[in-house]
Amino acid sequence: MKNINFVAAPGKQEIELTYLFDAPVELVFQTYIDPERIPQWWGPKYLTTSVEKMEVRPGGQWRFIQCDAGFTEYAFHGVYHLVAPPRLLVLTFEYGGMPEHVLLESIHFEAQDGNTLVTDRTIFQSVEDRDGMLQSGMEEGSSESMERFAALLETQNKKH
Amino acid sequence: MKNINFVAAPGKQEIELTYLFDAPVELVFQTYIDPERIPQWWGPKYLTTSVEKMEVRPGGQWRFIQCDAGFTEYAFHGVYHLVAPPRLLVLTFEYGGMPEHVLLESIHFEAQDGNTLVTDRTIFQSVEDRDGMLQSGMEEGSSESMERFAALLETQNKKH
Repeated sequence: MKNINFVAAPGKQEIELTYLFDAPVELVFQTYIDPERIPQWWGPKYLTTSVEKMEVRPGGQWRFIQCDAGFTEYAFHGVYHLVAPPRLLVLTFEYGGMPEHVLLESIHFEAQDGNTLVTDRTIFQSVEDRDGMLQSGMEEGSSESMERFAALLETQNKKH
Repeated sequence: MKNINFVAAPGKQEIELTYLFDAPVELVFQTYIDPERIPQWWGPKYLTTSVEKMEVRPGGQWRFIQCDAGFTEYAFHGVYHLVAPPRLLVLTFEYGGMPEHVLLESIHFEAQDGNTLVTDRTIFQSVEDRDGMLQSGMEEGSSESMERFAALLETQNKKH
């Protein structure tokens, strides 16, 4: 996996992340939307992530809970607007610690010579919300998630 | 009703509309989310609007069809992320003519001395999407909708 790009231009209310995975697009998409796999890659490794709800269809809701060693819980939830396998997901995203601050995330999956280019664009309700997310360590958190996701894909890929 | 403000700053991917309605916030909110009222105010008067689906709850879907005199149809749809009566709605919005271009709309309802201030903030996946929406006559369309909505509120208000 290569973290190709992280773009958060000053004054904009968006973030774009691009990754290239060494796996076919169908596998990448299916692994990404698999509730049973989420605890294996979603978020940083020092937190335990569990899936409370993950209905991958338009109007479906998702809710994940992260727990640290001191049993502090962090909740995240949203709804799926668009699910177009293996190509595109559009969903809303809200962090329980910032209630009513909602993001819209669009994740594009693109086949490239047997590899998969994933472009994840998030738009925020304000520049302040975007900058707050950046300050919370979002870049590092996303990178770690994507490294864990790549490692998981590698084990999945061997089975095929 | 007073159209207080329309803000679409150059280079930004958002639009903010503010309206003041001469009706209490509960009535404004309930009228806004009433599927039976949608055909009476949603969109410009020369189009006929029908509600195919309007499930006002988190994860609920909505789908409206507009039809012109020549029977050309325009479809709009999305999902509700947040429904907090009588205060806030957050929903996604997609126009069938621009598939996979998704907006996130947050509509705040605020009581002000018996009147209601409605602030409608929409964020777009890109500045281009935002500017395309502006060029399609969004400002005039919204104004007309809100004038129709105010007229409807007036008839509703008399009944109370």
